[in-house]
Amino acid sequence: MNYRMIFHMVGQITKLEAALLLLPTCVALLYRESCVFALLFTAVFALCVGFAFTLFSRPRSQVIFAKEGFVIVALAWMLLSAIGAIPFCLTREIPSYIDAFFETVSGFTTTGASILTDVESMSRGLLFWRSFTHWIGGMGVLVLIMALLPTGSGRSIHIMRAEVPGVTVGKLAPRLRDTAKILYLIYIALTLVEIGFLLAGGMSAFDSVVHAFGTAGTGGFGVRADSIAGYSPYLQWVITVFMLLFGVNFNVYFLLVMRHFGKALRNGELWMYLCIVLCATGLITLNTVSLYNGVGETVRHAAFQVSSIITTTGYATTDFNLWPDFSKAILLALMFVGGCAGSTAGGLKVSRILLLFKTFRRDLQRQLHPHAVGAIKLDGKRLDDGAVQSVSAYILLYFVVFGAGFLLLSLEPFGLETNFSAMAACLNNVGPGFAAVGPAGNFSIYSGFSTLLLSLAMLLGRLEIYALLLTLTPSTWLKE
Amino acid sequence: MNYRMIFHMVGQITKLEAALLLLPTCVALLYRESCVFALLFTAVFALCVGFAFTLFSRPRSQVIFAKEGFVIVALAWMLLSAIGAIPFCLTREIPSYIDAFFETVSGFTTTGASILTDVESMSRGLLFWRSFTHWIGGMGVLVLIMALLPTGSGRSIHIMRAEVPGVTVGKLAPRLRDTAKILYLIYIALTLVEIGFLLAGGMSAFDSVVHAFGTAGTGGFGVRADSIAGYSPYLQWVITVFMLLFGVNFNVYFLLVMRHFGKALRNGELWMYLCIVLCATGLITLNTVSLYNGVGETVRHAAFQVSSIITTTGYATTDFNLWPDFSKAILLALMFVGGCAGSTAGGLKVSRILLLFKTFRRDLQRQLHPHAVGAIKLDGKRLDDGAVQSVSAYILLYFVVFGAGFLLLSLEPFGLETNFSAMAACLNNVGPGFAAVGPAGNFSIYSGFSTLLLSLAMLLGRLEIYALLLTLTPSTWLKE
Repeated sequence: MNYRMIFHMVGQITKLEAALLLLPTCVALLYRESCVFALLFTAVFALCVGFAFTLFSRPRSQVIFAKEGFVIVALAWMLLSAIGAIPFCLTREIPSYIDAFFETVSGFTTTGASILTDVESMSRGLLFWRSFTHWIGGMGVLVLIMALLPTGSGRSIHIMRAEVPGVTVGKLAPRLRDTAKILYLIYIALTLVEIGFLLAGGMSAFDSVVHAFGTAGTGGFGVRADSIAGYSPYLQWVITVFMLLFGVNFNVYFLLVMRHFGKALRNGELWMYLCIVLCATGLITLNTVSLYNGVGETVRHAAFQVSSIITTTGYATTDFNLWPDFSKAILLALMFVGGCAGSTAGGLKVSRILLLFKTFRRDLQRQLHPHAVGAIKLDGKRLDDGAVQSVSAYILLYFVVFGAGFLLLSLEPFGLETNFSAMAACLNNVGPGFAAVGPAGNFSIYSGFSTLLLSLAMLLGRLEIYALLLTLTPSTWLKE
Repeated sequence: MNYRMIFHMVGQITKLEAALLLLPTCVALLYRESCVFALLFTAVFALCVGFAFTLFSRPRSQVIFAKEGFVIVALAWMLLSAIGAIPFCLTREIPSYIDAFFETVSGFTTTGASILTDVESMSRGLLFWRSFTHWIGGMGVLVLIMALLPTGSGRSIHIMRAEVPGVTVGKLAPRLRDTAKILYLIYIALTLVEIGFLLAGGMSAFDSVVHAFGTAGTGGFGVRADSIAGYSPYLQWVITVFMLLFGVNFNVYFLLVMRHFGKALRNGELWMYLCIVLCATGLITLNTVSLYNGVGETVRHAAFQVSSIITTTGYATTDFNLWPDFSKAILLALMFVGGCAGSTAGGLKVSRILLLFKTFRRDLQRQLHPHAVGAIKLDGKRLDDGAVQSVSAYILLYFVVFGAGFLLLSLEPFGLETNFSAMAACLNNVGPGFAAVGPAGNFSIYSGFSTLLLSLAMLLGRLEIYALLLTLTPSTWLKE
């Protein structure tokens, strides 16, 4: 285990957080809010912690293996959240540190679950920081480091693999640093385009930026108690479209930019994703048409909620907790499906579901012909058995982690629907669930223990389980 | 596809049902009940159907492949239930045929879910038939055929594989017919011992036999509205112990009878099963101790409910729907775990869960060392990759079938808790769920569509999905 390199990287990330904290500090200055001191203090504190880490751990070797990659990512995300929670506490806007930690983890993991009972009374500086964590966490803070700093090591692919969700990380460019840069450039460009569309619809500059951050990271933090319900239909449609766009694999955009149109569209995951969105919207429209004034309004609400849940964003234009059970069951299923691999969305990812169904078809054939060799192809490429198996194993591990989390959360007396959907909403990085944690409720009902449990679930979901699980396993640290 | 052999076997099974119907007919005669005519008519009808099938389909070849095995089992189980439902309708004790079909499927699949609102007003003859279906379905009707008739074909292992639940069917004796005989002898012996213990505790002869059938098949049909709550603590403990005994792999009993004690106890699944029962009982006792008079009574209720749910029997001594959420979440998890492979219990089976956790441990290692060869062993024997993978795939298929069923059931307006637990209770062959379908409720609330959907779920659960899925796939019938 290359401890020095681990501490070195974690230190670099903490220094980066110090720099990122300057942006909300400026916003607070602009609005002349008192939270500017808390933000500035935290930035200085993060800088000191970062220097402490890097000063005393000059790495002798830059070599990083898979194990170090997982540990760096897990430690970095926990430390980022622990430091990012400080301003909320210092300003007393969130008095409990555990609650502030939950809120910050919810931000970085792009979950959007909140313990705030009155979001509209918060200062602008902290609202901005809260939404900015979505944007940072969406594409990944370590990917950002790689885009900014020359790491010099060819092994940083392990860090990227541990942080970017999905089945495999495709190298867009020969050098990893260029890949990271391309990803961030696409991310920034799309965010700016969304801000433009929101401003054009008459949304205020502050609201536009905050909601673009929430959409880009597929997070879901807003600035109003009723989420997006109070904005015009045009603005709701803009957010619907951009939520869907940020749920698409970024490789597709790269291929489009490079004018490889054929290759970009020959993407099985993309078509399945669009197909699921259309089917779910159609079914929910049929199921809820009596609740709204006409088909147009129903389609708008159905499309918005479906896009919000499948991309695990978590914005809402209507209290979907009041929908019939069938529509709620569809949303619950979408929470687990999630967006495309290599996007900022959470959940299991559409490509894994696609592979799963291909595995089912092969296994059904194998029941009849046990010795038949059924090869599984994805986008024309044949996958080896190990890759197929590891997808099955991951999905199962995901459900077992979910089951264990739900069991522990059941110690809270809020009933099966609340606890079940709360765990589903946090593990899948969605945000709101049903019943007491629905769009009209919040997570402040939970005890300190459960708040930490849900924070852990959000991190497990965002980092796709293995990074955190390996870091918490003693043998990872003991063995050479 | 050997159609003649399929029809021949299905015909034989229908004739067997005619013979089995004579037992409840005798009971009805004994109690001088009018349902004797309905039962006798059904027996004659089954005999005619059976002869029709066998007369017109004298098989040219006795060869059965995996495909025929699956189709025979699926068709046989559906036909058995369709015919077995007739007496309930003829007597008007269950006026709707769909409800009667549900009740009979629930019997044969050893589920024990009931649409009856007043079980105590039923005639004894039909109550006996209802519980007798549990006993027949527990060990499997095709295994019974194999024990009784010389099939002459060495390929009938495919039928046995399709009907006996679990990872693999072990051959207890060189000849399959002897294996089937041994299984049934152990089954009959254990059932008789239980009847003896129940009689010794002062239970009436009729009640003893019916409850022994319900326990042996891990079914759960009783004769009282409050299930087992009205019986003495001694009788409750007897049923607890026998539920657990019928949840154990019958190979273990065979090894014990053959005096291979060491081999019998070197069974990882058995120990994990006992461990889960002890842990669950302990946790539920801690969680519910305030609800009862003292620890003794709490342990009795906890142990009874845990044994009832993990073995998917479904008897109850208390309304566990009123327990705290944590205890209910444990029971929900146990529903999916199920008993041991090669027992009469439903669910996923403990051995699959055991294998799953071994797979997780290996995959965690593989994240660090992608090229390491991690072999998975069960009871000292190394499993090949294909077997391990098919277990993962089966568990996933199980959850996907569950999810699809839950989605369709959500069209009913009974809320997430009722619909979710109803589907879990039916697919896992447990019987009662929570809320409106809890131990104090019943399944009569559901519409005809949902009643058929839940019947299908019970059959899918009992026959472990593939048999029914392949039979319902057109390509199975079209291809040679």
